[in-house]
Amino acid sequence: MSDVSSSSTSADRRAIGIFDSGLGGMTVARAVRRAFPAEPICYLGDTARVPYGTKSPATVRRYAREIVAFLREQSVKIIVAACNTVSAAALPDLDGAYDVPLIGVVEMGAEAAVGPDEKTRAESPKPRRIGVIGTETTIASGAYVRAIQRRAPEAEVIQKACPLLVPLIEEGWNRHRVTNLVIEEYLAPMRNEGIDTLILGCTHYPLIRPALGEFFGREVRLVDSAEAIVQALRAAFDSGTLGRAAAGAVSPAGEPARGEARYFVTDRSNRFRELVAAFMGESDLTVEQISSDVLTEALTRAERPSTDDARSS
Amino acid sequence: MSDVSSSSTSADRRAIGIFDSGLGGMTVARAVRRAFPAEPICYLGDTARVPYGTKSPATVRRYAREIVAFLREQSVKIIVAACNTVSAAALPDLDGAYDVPLIGVVEMGAEAAVGPDEKTRAESPKPRRIGVIGTETTIASGAYVRAIQRRAPEAEVIQKACPLLVPLIEEGWNRHRVTNLVIEEYLAPMRNEGIDTLILGCTHYPLIRPALGEFFGREVRLVDSAEAIVQALRAAFDSGTLGRAAAGAVSPAGEPARGEARYFVTDRSNRFRELVAAFMGESDLTVEQISSDVLTEALTRAERPSTDDARSS
Repeated sequence: MSDVSSSSTSADRRAIGIFDSGLGGMTVARAVRRAFPAEPICYLGDTARVPYGTKSPATVRRYAREIVAFLREQSVKIIVAACNTVSAAALPDLDGAYDVPLIGVVEMGAEAAVGPDEKTRAESPKPRRIGVIGTETTIASGAYVRAIQRRAPEAEVIQKACPLLVPLIEEGWNRHRVTNLVIEEYLAPMRNEGIDTLILGCTHYPLIRPALGEFFGREVRLVDSAEAIVQALRAAFDSGTLGRAAAGAVSPAGEPARGEARYFVTDRSNRFRELVAAFMGESDLTVEQISSDVLTEALTRAERPSTDDARSS
Repeated sequence: MSDVSSSSTSADRRAIGIFDSGLGGMTVARAVRRAFPAEPICYLGDTARVPYGTKSPATVRRYAREIVAFLREQSVKIIVAACNTVSAAALPDLDGAYDVPLIGVVEMGAEAAVGPDEKTRAESPKPRRIGVIGTETTIASGAYVRAIQRRAPEAEVIQKACPLLVPLIEEGWNRHRVTNLVIEEYLAPMRNEGIDTLILGCTHYPLIRPALGEFFGREVRLVDSAEAIVQALRAAFDSGTLGRAAAGAVSPAGEPARGEARYFVTDRSNRFRELVAAFMGESDLTVEQISSDVLTEALTRAERPSTDDARSS
């Protein structure tokens, strides 16, 4: 097998970097891990500073730059912002500024919602009506509306901020009458208006996908961040713009070789284990804790005028 | 009128420092302002790092030390931790370490719940049954249980973490069927067990006091953080351990002179104005924003070996 390489034609064993303000992005990490088991991943959850959804865009942008600097130091080949707040508030400013591609759940969610055939569909039978739900900051940013309408200018987008859904999911009330009542309270107007697709614009929401599916019925297609990112990574692998860790590598037993997975958080709450198990579906995950100062320092290093560009080999 | 002085017998025009992880502590600031209009106050809401309730005790302690350092630089005569998480996790370590007294909502809430006559009451007709509600971290700390049982060893304490109440209040659903349902879900067992007093162990909760009052009925006395702190400050003023800004000072119009009020936050969310209005009852409050780095730097200064102890006069 060839050595680590950044070429897209040979194997690229660098990790897929994934980050979120907290643990919710683990729903994305889990889906990526399942879809591409040979790929190493590196997850960072900024749990000391969660939630980003209530913070100002300037603060969110600063935190995002810190985390991108940290992940780049971990040797990653792509960075996934598995955080809707970051994708909405910070990614447009950051994209293109680095030597690794940056993708976020907003653009990829819009892509998955609109669908690849939308652009080629000559005469649409009826205009698309796409619903978007998320935190206050995500919805207020209008980022999904812009991302959808860039791809499907005729599409009507109906948005609704649902700030109570995250705490309900973190309470474990995914199938609870209170959650059903809150969904009804927030989303009955959207259902009455009629939508064909609903973007679950928050990484927590895959956990209440069943409750949302029942509320909206089978005629509404649900698109969540986890599947949107998997779809985007698959397209990048298939087109060769992103190198696979090891195409078809198998272990001696014939099983695909499993890429290394590293998980970092900046703090542990008293319900940490419980939440990791809920989001990752693994209760015995090894998670390394680092201070959020480590992120700040990574940005300081990254922004320092480079006096030593030599890398250790 | 005499000049600023730290003596307890003459006027002490230094401010009452009040802090919280966010804006919830403004319910305390508001009550203090109403009870003691002549007193200057200085409020700090660490909104960039809110909520503390999901963070580790070590992180909460570090943040509390930073804020105490910042408030001491603002010239305060007492510091009120209007944050249950800080009072529970950090105050026992901090108390006595400074030249200004530190009081917190946990000890003062327990004091108000137990009542001044409890210690002198020879033979209690029946043992006290005190309920406590709060965030996960506050409840998990057991701080209220210890604070109550130090004052009334026979008291039975029934606790319940209610993590959804804060987001419901921040959503403005103070009188909403969902909030009533959540209260019922969390607190029906406590009501069935029977309590005589309920401590509202979170600074947000005064806003749902009516809903809680209806749920528990008139036979249960509700004690909230705001009234507990006012009661503690009044006792300190009356006993002379804390100097008043100006005893009986009146303006030329005969109105009591109003102390200066300064409000600092470390971030502004998109619903900032709305929340300030909800907690303070004033919609046109001037609030100064500082970086949370300012807090960190205050602690660095405070912990630096003192090379210049001289104060500017």
